[in-house]
Amino acid sequence: MAKGITKRSEDYAKWYLDVIAAADLAEHSAVRGSMVIKPTGYALWENIQRELDRMFKETGHENAYFPLLIPESFLKKEAEHIEGFAPELAVVTHGGGKRLEEPLVIRPTSETIIWSSYAKWIQSYRDLPILINQWANVVRWEMRTRLFLRTAEFLWQEGHTAHATEEEAVEETLRILNVYRTFAEEFLAAPVFTGIKTAAQRFAGAIDTYCIEAMMQDRKALQGGTSHYLGLNFAKAFDVTFQDEKGETKYVYATSWGVSTRLIGLLIMTHSDDKGLVIPPRLAPTKVVFIPIWQDDSQIAMIRAKVADITDGWKERLTFKVDDREQYRPGYKFNEWEKKGVPIRIEIGPKDIENNQVVLARRDTGEKMSVSQDNLFERVDKLLATIQQDMYNRALEFRDANTHDEDDFAAFAKRIDDPGGFFWVHWCGSPDCENKFQETGKATIRLIPLDESRKQEGACIVCGKPSHTRVLVAKSY
Amino acid sequence: MAKGITKRSEDYAKWYLDVIAAADLAEHSAVRGSMVIKPTGYALWENIQRELDRMFKETGHENAYFPLLIPESFLKKEAEHIEGFAPELAVVTHGGGKRLEEPLVIRPTSETIIWSSYAKWIQSYRDLPILINQWANVVRWEMRTRLFLRTAEFLWQEGHTAHATEEEAVEETLRILNVYRTFAEEFLAAPVFTGIKTAAQRFAGAIDTYCIEAMMQDRKALQGGTSHYLGLNFAKAFDVTFQDEKGETKYVYATSWGVSTRLIGLLIMTHSDDKGLVIPPRLAPTKVVFIPIWQDDSQIAMIRAKVADITDGWKERLTFKVDDREQYRPGYKFNEWEKKGVPIRIEIGPKDIENNQVVLARRDTGEKMSVSQDNLFERVDKLLATIQQDMYNRALEFRDANTHDEDDFAAFAKRIDDPGGFFWVHWCGSPDCENKFQETGKATIRLIPLDESRKQEGACIVCGKPSHTRVLVAKSY
Repeated sequence: MAKGITKRSEDYAKWYLDVIAAADLAEHSAVRGSMVIKPTGYALWENIQRELDRMFKETGHENAYFPLLIPESFLKKEAEHIEGFAPELAVVTHGGGKRLEEPLVIRPTSETIIWSSYAKWIQSYRDLPILINQWANVVRWEMRTRLFLRTAEFLWQEGHTAHATEEEAVEETLRILNVYRTFAEEFLAAPVFTGIKTAAQRFAGAIDTYCIEAMMQDRKALQGGTSHYLGLNFAKAFDVTFQDEKGETKYVYATSWGVSTRLIGLLIMTHSDDKGLVIPPRLAPTKVVFIPIWQDDSQIAMIRAKVADITDGWKERLTFKVDDREQYRPGYKFNEWEKKGVPIRIEIGPKDIENNQVVLARRDTGEKMSVSQDNLFERVDKLLATIQQDMYNRALEFRDANTHDEDDFAAFAKRIDDPGGFFWVHWCGSPDCENKFQETGKATIRLIPLDESRKQEGACIVCGKPSHTRVLVAKSY
Repeated sequence: MAKGITKRSEDYAKWYLDVIAAADLAEHSAVRGSMVIKPTGYALWENIQRELDRMFKETGHENAYFPLLIPESFLKKEAEHIEGFAPELAVVTHGGGKRLEEPLVIRPTSETIIWSSYAKWIQSYRDLPILINQWANVVRWEMRTRLFLRTAEFLWQEGHTAHATEEEAVEETLRILNVYRTFAEEFLAAPVFTGIKTAAQRFAGAIDTYCIEAMMQDRKALQGGTSHYLGLNFAKAFDVTFQDEKGETKYVYATSWGVSTRLIGLLIMTHSDDKGLVIPPRLAPTKVVFIPIWQDDSQIAMIRAKVADITDGWKERLTFKVDDREQYRPGYKFNEWEKKGVPIRIEIGPKDIENNQVVLARRDTGEKMSVSQDNLFERVDKLLATIQQDMYNRALEFRDANTHDEDDFAAFAKRIDDPGGFFWVHWCGSPDCENKFQETGKATIRLIPLDESRKQEGACIVCGKPSHTRVLVAKSY
C-alpha cells in the first residue's frame, strides 16, 4: 500500500479520492461542485477524446459548436425535457451590468439550442442526415458531487443527429452504442453490458435510452455512456420538418448521445489498486518510464547515454519518460510512477548494461522480468498489448464472477448488500416492482438487455407475474 | 463574383459576412451575440487548435481545465482586472432552483480562478515554473458583435504560467509572442507586426501586453493574439508565494496569453476574395477536390475508377474529396468549392484520361494548368507548398504597400481615412496625444515595436515633443 492511499478494503470511497490525489489527476475547486482537472488528468481526457473523435469521424460525424447559453423558453418547449432538467439548472440573469429580459440557462445538454438551429438547416430530404458531434462543457447543479463521477460542471461530447426515418435514427442510436461499447472494451479495457433503460431511468425527452454499464471493483454499476433515440420529440418542439422525395412534409427523427469525463472515474475504479492508479496502456499519456539506477554518481552519465542509445527512434512511436532526477532514490521514483499508473517501468543499472539487459516491471501485476536490450522497442510494444488484454480479461473475470442470475427476492435483498454485484432477475415491467429494488436494496434496473440470450420466460422476482426477459439490477454510481 | 457574395469594393463588412455564409462557416444563434460554428468552420478551428497545441507542447506546456464559473469576489481581488471586465460579465445568480449566496460569473478569462488554484499548488521553488494552457469557452457581454471577430461567447486557448523570477516570466511572455507570430506567418500565411501595447490598450491586470497585429484587406488592423506579462499582480491578489533556494518567501511572477476563434476572422479577411473563402493549404480541412467531368453518363464509372486509381495511397497523407455527385454540373461544383476555399481543384475528364493528364486549378490565383498524372501526389504536394508561400507573399506585399512612415498630422488624418493603412508615426508617450489618433481618425496605437529598426529620434506627430521611437497607428477591428 502506498503512503497516503487508503486501502480499498477499508474505505472504497476514500480510496477513490486518494488515488486521484496521489496520481494528481484533479481536485475540488473553490466553486461548489466544480473540479479542476490537473495536467495528468487532462492528458488522460485528451487521449480519450482523440480516440473517440476518430471513431466518430470514421462513422461519418463532424464536429461543430453551439452556444453555451440557452434561452429558458427553449428548454420549456419539450415538456419532459424541462421537467427533468429544471432542478439542475444554473441561470444567468444579468449580462453586461443589466438584468436580462429573458433568463439564460447554462446548457445542461444541448438538444434545444441545437434543434433550434436544425429548424433553419433542414428543409429537404437532401439536407438529411445531419451527423454532428460537439465537445463541450455542461453544467448540472448537482447537490452531491464526486470528482469525475458527478460534478456540477463536466466536459463531454454530445452527438446530435437528424434523420428522415425512424429506422435510420434507431440504427444511428445503436451504431453509437456500439462505438461506446468498443471504446470501453478496447481502450478503457472495461467490459460493459449494453441495453436499454426502463422508462424511469430514461433521458428526459427520449423515447429510448440505450446505455453501457460497467462493474466497478466494489461491485457497483457505473453508467459509462448513453445513446438516446429521441423520436420526433424535439422536431415537434422546434417545428423541424422536411419535404421528402414525394414532396410531402414530415417531421425529422432525432438521436443524441454522450460520454463525459466520468469515463476517467470508470477507468480508475475498474483497474486501480492500493498502490494507486493503473492506466490501460492504450490510454496512458506516458506508457513507459525509465528509472536509471546507480551506485555512485560517476555512473550517471554512462547510464544516461545508454538510455538515450536504447530509446533512439522511440519518440515518434511511443510516449516515454526518463526519470533521472538526481535528488531522489529509485524506491521513491518507483512509488511515484506506480501512483501515477504508468504501465511499464524499465530499470537500468550498471549490471544491466554489462549484461545487455534491462528489468521490465509491469504496473498492473507488479511482475518483474529481465530482458535483453536487443529489440527492446518490440518487446515493450508487445508487452503493452499484453497488459491491455490482461487488464480487460481480469476486469471481465471479476465482473462475471460477481454477476448472477437470481430468482428469489429475499436472497437478492441480502446479496445486493453483501457481497453486492450484478443480478439478472426477472421483472414484470411494472414501475411498482421496479421501485422495490430501490426501496429494498438501493438498487436500480441498470438495463434491459438487447441480446437474445437473456430472453427467457420466468416470473417477476418481486410479484411473480410473468416476465419475458431478465434485466440487470445493481447498485450504481 | 460568386452569386450571393457582395464585392469587397462595394461593402467590405457585408462581403465578410457573405463569405462566411457562402462557405457555411458559422451563423448567428438565437442567443444574442452567440454564434453557431458550423462543421466547415469548426474543422478550420480544429486545424488551428492542432497546430497551436503542438507548438505549446513543444515549448513545454501542458493542458489542464479550470471551472467555467468564478465567484464574483475572485475578480474583485485584482483592482484593474475587475474594472476592465465588470462591464462585460454574465452573472449566474440562481443554481438548482435557489438564489446563490454569492453570484458566480462566467469566466471572461481565467486568471483569478487559476491563481486561486496556484496558491495551493505552489510552495517551493521546486514547484516552479508552472506552464499550463487551457482550451475553453469564455463569455464577454459585447454589445456589438460580428461573427468570429467579436462574439459574446468565443472559443480560445489561455495559457497561464507561474515563475520564480521576473526575467523568466518576461522570457515566457516573449516566447509565446514568438509562437503566435510563427503560427500566423507559417500557418495563417499572415504577416504580423509584433510589439507592446500602450497603457491604454493593455490587458486589465497586466504590466505589459504584447501583441501580433495583421493588416486586413480593407487596410485595418486586427489583433490576432496577446501575451501578457502580469508581474506580481495576481500573486499578490491571491497571496501566492514560494520559498526560494535560500528559504526566503517570495511572490510568484505570472504570464497569460491567448488566441481565439478570432483567428478565423483574420484568415478570412487576409486572403479571401469576391468568389468566397480562400484557405491557406496548411490549415485547409480539405486540401484538394477532384471534379470528374463527363459528357455522357456512360463515362462516369470509368472516370471514378481512374480517380480511385490516381488517389490510391493519398488518404493517409492528404485530405481530399471527390465530388462525383451526378445531379450537379461541373460549373456548379467549381463555384461551390471556390466558395469554400479548397486550395486545389483537379478536373479530370475522358480527354484527360486519354492524355494521361489532369487539370489543376489554384483557388488563390485562379490559374489552371494541365499536368501529367505521373507523380501527381508529389506535384500536388509541391503546389500546396507554393500556394501557401505565395499567399503569404501577397499578404506581405499588400501590407508593406499600405504601411507608411508619416510625420505630418494633417496628412495622417487624411490618409488614415483614405486609403487607410498602417502608419509608423512618432509619439511622445502622452495619453493626450494618444487620444488624438482616436478623435481625429478613429485610429489607435496598435503597438510600440520591439525591434531596434524603429527606434529613432523624432518629434511627436501630434505635439512635436521629442519621441524616441515610431509607433504603429491604424484603425482596427
